[in-house]
Amino acid sequence: MKAEIITIGDEILIGQIVDTNSAWMGKQLNRIGWEISRIHTIPDTIEAIVDTLQQASSRSAAVLITGGLGPTKDDVTKDALCRFFECDLEFDQTSYDRIAERFKALNKPMKNAHRHQAMLPSKCTAIDNEYGTAPGMHFVHQSCDIISMPGVPYEMKGLMTNVVLDVLKSRSQESVYYQTLVTANVPESVLAERLTNFELKLPTHLKLAYLPHYNLVRLRLTAKGSQADGLEAVVGDLIDEMKQILGNVVIADEDLPIAQIVGNLLKERNETVSFAESCTGGYVAHLITSNAGSSAYFPGSVVTYSYDNKTEVLGVDSEILWQDGAVSEAVVTKMARSIRIKNKTNYALALSGIAGPDGGTEEKPVGTVWMAVCNAERVVTKCYQLKGNRIQNIERSAHLGLELLRKLIVGLI
Amino acid sequence: MKAEIITIGDEILIGQIVDTNSAWMGKQLNRIGWEISRIHTIPDTIEAIVDTLQQASSRSAAVLITGGLGPTKDDVTKDALCRFFECDLEFDQTSYDRIAERFKALNKPMKNAHRHQAMLPSKCTAIDNEYGTAPGMHFVHQSCDIISMPGVPYEMKGLMTNVVLDVLKSRSQESVYYQTLVTANVPESVLAERLTNFELKLPTHLKLAYLPHYNLVRLRLTAKGSQADGLEAVVGDLIDEMKQILGNVVIADEDLPIAQIVGNLLKERNETVSFAESCTGGYVAHLITSNAGSSAYFPGSVVTYSYDNKTEVLGVDSEILWQDGAVSEAVVTKMARSIRIKNKTNYALALSGIAGPDGGTEEKPVGTVWMAVCNAERVVTKCYQLKGNRIQNIERSAHLGLELLRKLIVGLI
Repeated sequence: MKAEIITIGDEILIGQIVDTNSAWMGKQLNRIGWEISRIHTIPDTIEAIVDTLQQASSRSAAVLITGGLGPTKDDVTKDALCRFFECDLEFDQTSYDRIAERFKALNKPMKNAHRHQAMLPSKCTAIDNEYGTAPGMHFVHQSCDIISMPGVPYEMKGLMTNVVLDVLKSRSQESVYYQTLVTANVPESVLAERLTNFELKLPTHLKLAYLPHYNLVRLRLTAKGSQADGLEAVVGDLIDEMKQILGNVVIADEDLPIAQIVGNLLKERNETVSFAESCTGGYVAHLITSNAGSSAYFPGSVVTYSYDNKTEVLGVDSEILWQDGAVSEAVVTKMARSIRIKNKTNYALALSGIAGPDGGTEEKPVGTVWMAVCNAERVVTKCYQLKGNRIQNIERSAHLGLELLRKLIVGLI
Repeated sequence: MKAEIITIGDEILIGQIVDTNSAWMGKQLNRIGWEISRIHTIPDTIEAIVDTLQQASSRSAAVLITGGLGPTKDDVTKDALCRFFECDLEFDQTSYDRIAERFKALNKPMKNAHRHQAMLPSKCTAIDNEYGTAPGMHFVHQSCDIISMPGVPYEMKGLMTNVVLDVLKSRSQESVYYQTLVTANVPESVLAERLTNFELKLPTHLKLAYLPHYNLVRLRLTAKGSQADGLEAVVGDLIDEMKQILGNVVIADEDLPIAQIVGNLLKERNETVSFAESCTGGYVAHLITSNAGSSAYFPGSVVTYSYDNKTEVLGVDSEILWQDGAVSEAVVTKMARSIRIKNKTNYALALSGIAGPDGGTEEKPVGTVWMAVCNAERVVTKCYQLKGNRIQNIERSAHLGLELLRKLIVGLI
């Protein structure tokens, strides 16, 4: 089943905002056996909307439209839908009551522009919007489902989750099931080599995708078939086989970010971690505290950016700092040991590097990063030479550091 | 001048990656007087590419294509271009030499697939790719510039910056100049009210755009005209007028993130800052250290996540913690004061809140955030009630905290 997305609005075309809606919608549709075959980002003019809708609806089984439903005169989606479906706007009492209720709850006066949001094309079925004032709209046009939603991400997500995905699911003859393995530190090409035989004997209704991101590669195995196929069992068995083939390269059997994989490990073991960050400047702590419930295993950490701060907060010997430099094995070793003891955690991770663009030398060019992980028994250090810009070097260092920490936690180093 | 973007690749359609390329390209083109009128995201099939290229080139003065130039068999962009332009692939010696050189420098063996990257459609002019192996391609088709680039963001950006933007600039009859004011803490609607008269008398070749993001609204004034119009002077005068009207609501007269506005202020004044973060978990430090050169004003900071860590690292009275709770005025006040003295900085910012999804109470629901900023003379505190999810609450808190800090630095509080 193929769907197309039409994203309406100048903000994306002028680069003011990045379109994250489409990726989210693509992921959700994929899960229920739909494919997004095209995404159109177009300006908010009636002509562009009608023209694109014409093309998309003639080609695909569903068209999902986002944007252009606000109360201002720039928002012409409803007018375009009226033109396309050859109908007029009609007052919708249910939608009106819901909007009025919303304003009452917020204790705000309702304006004419908001009243206008209850005017809907007569050929549509309104979809309740829990998170905003503009209702969604559902049309059926020559067996194509055309659904219009607000562009505000949480409003769109609410409509999709509450209504739209169920509508699309009911249209699909096909069932889809997939599972993801997360692997670390082995490049895509090497994984593909190890899985050559496995892939050769995969039945045609199964597909393996390699999704690399920094030092991790996600392997997603997807099965498609009719409802009764027992896809889950088939995928489960094959995933087990892949885990056997790949061994401890696999770090998780569900699609989680590295910070959450580490967090879950710590939670299971009832253990804790702290960080001493220099080049990553708080980014590792940010990743860990992005996990809901991270207070169970993370009491706190420090960012020691200057030489003095490293000495004063973590007791790094200033002689070593000047001799070896802040980006050195001796310094990260001391940083990790100190913060672990100071914050009374089972583990610690310390990072010090040159994120760039300045600060590199011939001996230690931009991208040089030293990291150390430790527990009560030992410290393991590692040095990387990264090749990105400042932000990429920060992000990659954090990922590599968390993976090194994971290895120590599970006893692989 | 209108351009369209064609983004080729299944990764975006299945939601594996978010298309950040298009927004970046939109921004760049806007600066040189071009408008992006449509963005097409399509699968990597020859049919889809040829069909979209046909439509786009018949409508617009330029078509920018990204993706599908890799060495694998999924990458069919060149075949599609050959079909569209009715030509064959030809060996390009210059491109070959450059690719071979690249592999030599990396000390890696060159494979057949890489040799194939020097095979280019005979009707194109190759564009040198400094950051990868696939050359860009430039075609002119019935006065439409068609340019194909790799989808890897830094390779695409390299080609755009080195060659493509200059090509497009030379095609444009129109000159564009714009300047941005950053304002804080005043909603778009209030700004628009204050600027009503200003906007009414704006000449038609000038346009004011409101770009809200968290507690900041960027006001971008754009002028278009022929080369000799002296656009810069016109915009400069009007920007001064806006600054007069808006007064100290304006926090910067160029388009910078809040962390850089704060960083620049500190640098100018030769002053320093440190942070004590609870709910933001290192995110404020991450924003500040994302600025190149931040070591000039940022020696370090702490993330104190647990009660104990707040007490041990910052000396927060544990009685107060249990009485007032960690999310309280008394606690953030102590946190800010302590870290300022500990890290010997001119200013400090402390934040403590409930980011969610759990941890809220009736009295302090999810989204409650206390923050304190201080210098040697005084502490200023503030409490916010935010309404986002965990990540949004973290990001918004950081923005609000940095803005409060800015106010203290410039003496507005």
